[in-house]
Amino acid sequence: MSTVEQFINSLSPHRGALNDLIEMIDEKNYAFKPTPTSMETEKLVNHTLKTTYTFARLAAKQSPEDLFPEGDDTPLAERARVYTDETYASIKLLEDEDLDELIDVKKMFGSEIPAGKLLEMAKDHEIHHKGQLFVYVREMGHTDLPSFVKK
Amino acid sequence: MSTVEQFINSLSPHRGALNDLIEMIDEKNYAFKPTPTSMETEKLVNHTLKTTYTFARLAAKQSPEDLFPEGDDTPLAERARVYTDETYASIKLLEDEDLDELIDVKKMFGSEIPAGKLLEMAKDHEIHHKGQLFVYVREMGHTDLPSFVKK
Repeated sequence: MSTVEQFINSLSPHRGALNDLIEMIDEKNYAFKPTPTSMETEKLVNHTLKTTYTFARLAAKQSPEDLFPEGDDTPLAERARVYTDETYASIKLLEDEDLDELIDVKKMFGSEIPAGKLLEMAKDHEIHHKGQLFVYVREMGHTDLPSFVKK
Repeated sequence: MSTVEQFINSLSPHRGALNDLIEMIDEKNYAFKPTPTSMETEKLVNHTLKTTYTFARLAAKQSPEDLFPEGDDTPLAERARVYTDETYASIKLLEDEDLDELIDVKKMFGSEIPAGKLLEMAKDHEIHHKGQLFVYVREMGHTDLPSFVKK
């Protein structure tokens, strides 16, 4: 199995669980936040999906795009489907040797970062926010939550 | 840099942030949980620290040990220091070629898993629960939280 395929296999149980969790969020809870200083649910979900997508685009040397313009009211579950397809599409453009290519993310991180490392950072970032989202969704009243990884 | 060193370098920003977060938890909040069905703070912290430690021990072919017996009242920040030292000590026993060794975790996962994969699973699991803990600590009244990775 190629290293790129291995990465996809390591991301997909998390993305699967994230998307299952997003499916559980009723529109009436889009503005929910557990404390006044917390990120709102809708913003947290968008941020999580968009960051992995953006890092995948950058790793594949594509310019990041705004899939959903500010104010767009596409339901979160539909956004998750679109972001997931587009994220995998970018990652699948990569060959194993591309993972060592330095990507110019100086504006974001102050340095160049190898594409493979950028993908790892995207995955870690996604797992972090998915963890937070589990707490949010439980606070919305759900008690039967998915596992933290989807088999 | 060896693959084992790379793994330590990828875990340590998360462990650093986790430990900073644990430092912020006042003992009066050890039983805090955001909803009645959530895991209590103390249990969540113990579970997170103990799982990474256990996986590191197993990866290094050491039998897991109970560092703190049931009912022990060592403060969480002190537990975090001990678990962190012991976890790194086990990982540092590994050479790169050990990462491909199959570890018998059939009782937990129904199959053997290579040591390197087990370490990655431990890291992902830790990031997940650290994400949850960020929400918990904010709900305890803290608004100035560490970054999700410690530089």
